[in-house]
Amino acid sequence: MRQRHKPWADEFLLENNHLVIPSATEHRLNWRKVFGNDNKPIHLEVGTGKGQFLIGMAKQYPEVNFIGIEISKSVIVSATEKVIASGLDNILLLNEDASDLREMFGENEISSLYLNFSDPWPKNRHEKRRLTYHSFLEQYEEILDQDGQLIFKTDNRGLFEYSLVSFNGYGMKLEEVNLDLHAINDETNVMTEYEEKFSSKGQVIYRCKARFGSR
Amino acid sequence: MRQRHKPWADEFLLENNHLVIPSATEHRLNWRKVFGNDNKPIHLEVGTGKGQFLIGMAKQYPEVNFIGIEISKSVIVSATEKVIASGLDNILLLNEDASDLREMFGENEISSLYLNFSDPWPKNRHEKRRLTYHSFLEQYEEILDQDGQLIFKTDNRGLFEYSLVSFNGYGMKLEEVNLDLHAINDETNVMTEYEEKFSSKGQVIYRCKARFGSR
Repeated sequence: MRQRHKPWADEFLLENNHLVIPSATEHRLNWRKVFGNDNKPIHLEVGTGKGQFLIGMAKQYPEVNFIGIEISKSVIVSATEKVIASGLDNILLLNEDASDLREMFGENEISSLYLNFSDPWPKNRHEKRRLTYHSFLEQYEEILDQDGQLIFKTDNRGLFEYSLVSFNGYGMKLEEVNLDLHAINDETNVMTEYEEKFSSKGQVIYRCKARFGSR
Repeated sequence: MRQRHKPWADEFLLENNHLVIPSATEHRLNWRKVFGNDNKPIHLEVGTGKGQFLIGMAKQYPEVNFIGIEISKSVIVSATEKVIASGLDNILLLNEDASDLREMFGENEISSLYLNFSDPWPKNRHEKRRLTYHSFLEQYEEILDQDGQLIFKTDNRGLFEYSLVSFNGYGMKLEEVNLDLHAINDETNVMTEYEEKFSSKGQVIYRCKARFGSR
């Protein structure tokens, strides 16, 4: 959801640069140190929106550090406000374009990567923009550690169909395919804002968990 | 759907043994000759029921020979009556248990294999009975030719989820994953009896097309 322009956003983000980290590329291979709690695995959400999922996960898994990337400045302001209100110290946010994650993260630096309700880019000519296109999978493969998992949720049927074929074609191992997430009683599932809204309207939510093969 | 016992079934099938072929194993690697039209590829449906799909396909693709296997004698009687009524000469039926297709078909003898609304066997302890369990995939891989395709339709969510993971885990190439077949306008889709009934009730129909890798 687009938010109205917030002219005070730059100032707000600068004030909170311990939480919304500028110049992300400078911290490549050094994120554990930025968190200041060296021994925790890092989970990454690409397109973190207003942060509901990230905050819910960070509460549920205090032994994990979470990084959320969000391109929209006005949206990440909302996420920042919520993270501050939560008091959680295992979350960092990046107001960045995720076009090449390898600039921000080194090999094996990430343990789990979440794609939640990514833009479906339904037109064939926009296939390359879908976050499950093979050029993105190459990135994920590099930054994820050996046992690293990709967890993908969407309500978009076309994107989910495409992504299963894409994961399989790339040689990924499908570990779970769930075609109606809310029909099972997965109490560990943390809902995004979109998921809450769409599933309350009776929309089916799809989820896939997949790993890359051993390198 | 179970039908009532038909005591005249044995006699009827014997009378039509040019169509419902007894002793299927004797014709292994020789099915083209049984059809009597040597140059046509053979497509196989495992669990052909009352034959609506097989007959629809045989009408649509006269350049293909179709074999339908059905374990239930009373059900295959209905299929036989329908095939006779259709006047089609590119269909054969087998009243057999499909527990090992390699006894009936040789390497590369089949060009496409259809699984339509197979028994979901939802209990974990019955996994081995599902027609998309890896021991069945081994059979399909052997009897399908190099470019042979497996086409799988079901309305059962659990079986479809399981099967996608199974195909992927076996190293098959997913070529199509369709999570709402009737939402697209695929005029070549031939409906089974079950499909017609379930989809008219608003039930989603899933379809997957997959190939085995080159041997």
